[in-house]
Amino acid sequence: MGRITTRRALTKITVGREPQRRIDTLAVEEPLEIRVGGTALVITMRTPGHDVELAAGFLVSEGVVSRTEQFRSAIHCGGPGTGGGENQYNVLDVALVDASLSATTIRNFYTTSSCGLCGKASIDAIDTVSTFDVASDPISLAAQRLTTFPTVLREHQSVFDKTGGLHAAALFDAASGELLVLREDVGRHNAVDKVVGWALLHDRLPLSGTVLQVSGRASFELVQKAVMAGIPILAAVSAPSSLAVELADAAGLTLVGFLRGESMNVYTRPERIAAQSLLQQP
Amino acid sequence: MGRITTRRALTKITVGREPQRRIDTLAVEEPLEIRVGGTALVITMRTPGHDVELAAGFLVSEGVVSRTEQFRSAIHCGGPGTGGGENQYNVLDVALVDASLSATTIRNFYTTSSCGLCGKASIDAIDTVSTFDVASDPISLAAQRLTTFPTVLREHQSVFDKTGGLHAAALFDAASGELLVLREDVGRHNAVDKVVGWALLHDRLPLSGTVLQVSGRASFELVQKAVMAGIPILAAVSAPSSLAVELADAAGLTLVGFLRGESMNVYTRPERIAAQSLLQQP
Repeated sequence: MGRITTRRALTKITVGREPQRRIDTLAVEEPLEIRVGGTALVITMRTPGHDVELAAGFLVSEGVVSRTEQFRSAIHCGGPGTGGGENQYNVLDVALVDASLSATTIRNFYTTSSCGLCGKASIDAIDTVSTFDVASDPISLAAQRLTTFPTVLREHQSVFDKTGGLHAAALFDAASGELLVLREDVGRHNAVDKVVGWALLHDRLPLSGTVLQVSGRASFELVQKAVMAGIPILAAVSAPSSLAVELADAAGLTLVGFLRGESMNVYTRPERIAAQSLLQQP
Repeated sequence: MGRITTRRALTKITVGREPQRRIDTLAVEEPLEIRVGGTALVITMRTPGHDVELAAGFLVSEGVVSRTEQFRSAIHCGGPGTGGGENQYNVLDVALVDASLSATTIRNFYTTSSCGLCGKASIDAIDTVSTFDVASDPISLAAQRLTTFPTVLREHQSVFDKTGGLHAAALFDAASGELLVLREDVGRHNAVDKVVGWALLHDRLPLSGTVLQVSGRASFELVQKAVMAGIPILAAVSAPSSLAVELADAAGLTLVGFLRGESMNVYTRPERIAAQSLLQQP
């Protein structure tokens, strides 16, 4: 449990040279089955550690819970079902306060099957289940402050340094610039779920006044998770997809992409980011 | 349908300068529901285009089909269910020759729920359903040839050039170095499924003697897809995960990571890659 990296032998091959045997550090990837009330809801490939946060954040992202008191407890499944072997801590059973919420009702409620499936329908679905209103969040911050976040993210990515193999997501307070929490995972959606789950478990939802900084691209799924957690600004170091921008637009979230060096692309709600910082006045 | 990029206004913000309005090109992301015999099997967020390949490759990856003649047809769903609106081409219904294979039987067959869920069980599951034997593939190639593949991949990534937002997967013939097929998608697993689906539809499975080159990291899922398609070598420009290496080891696939410039890390079955090319002898 919590085994985030592992070591393994490899052969380093360089054209024209003798191959060399080396030991390398790898990011651990293991399946996690999230259960609700004893029934399997989803299996995700994740980096072990912060599993309760991951499950909590997943349930927030799916619109199942939005307040700390709705989440009763979560335990790693063990005992007879493990077949007598070592507990791998790869099954987590969540107990919700509302006992009518089972894995089955959750799945049925959040599965669409219309033949007219389209991006618009996906956006409407988020709009329907979202509890928080990011559109009216009065957050604003200096562009200069935002440009420091990728560096802070990178500096705190302890596992990435060793493995080159992990995505990261970090939450910053816009007013102070303080790093609130950072999580790493082989899956970018898992890293964000762990951050959101941390917030649920610490009674910090909605995450108004915060910026979610991610290490890679911005997909629909990441914007969905930000919106569901009430995060008003999502910043990615790389490109967003079309549907990510459309959902951000519909939800009133500020979506930033290509945040590199001193500049960034702001796809939606750019008025929240001030290019001219007071600190830069002569 | 097939709309791979879209254009959208954004605000370019640089610290200390006036914000500028620009038009940018984004990679399109839209949901695709894959049905089998009229029943929903899975919904994936993908870049439109090559949807039949995507569905075919997904079914190969899941072990449902492995031969061209098992795949009867696939049509985009339209008609009354679309609610009278424009057909978004986001629902694809696959007809398999074996009518007993429905979405329900496929789901039940490939879902595990053991409390002892672990990486080992995931690897065993692949081993159980895999039709092809990559371990005994006699493929070998010069390291020098392998080092050219990321460059070729990059040169052919037409959409990435415009958007910076897509993953790519390409299949190369090891003996000739020829690029057989390349696909791009917002999801790396989808890019690989499209390549594998292309192979199924062109009666090229198993893909012995080929190298699958991917633009990013190597996860368990990507190794799974390579193994299920009979691809003996998977090369990634970035890091593999622990479980990716473990599955490659168990299946006898050669897994290459950090393929950059003249060198690479070979995690499993390195004897297939010759560091000393004949071309380099004096």
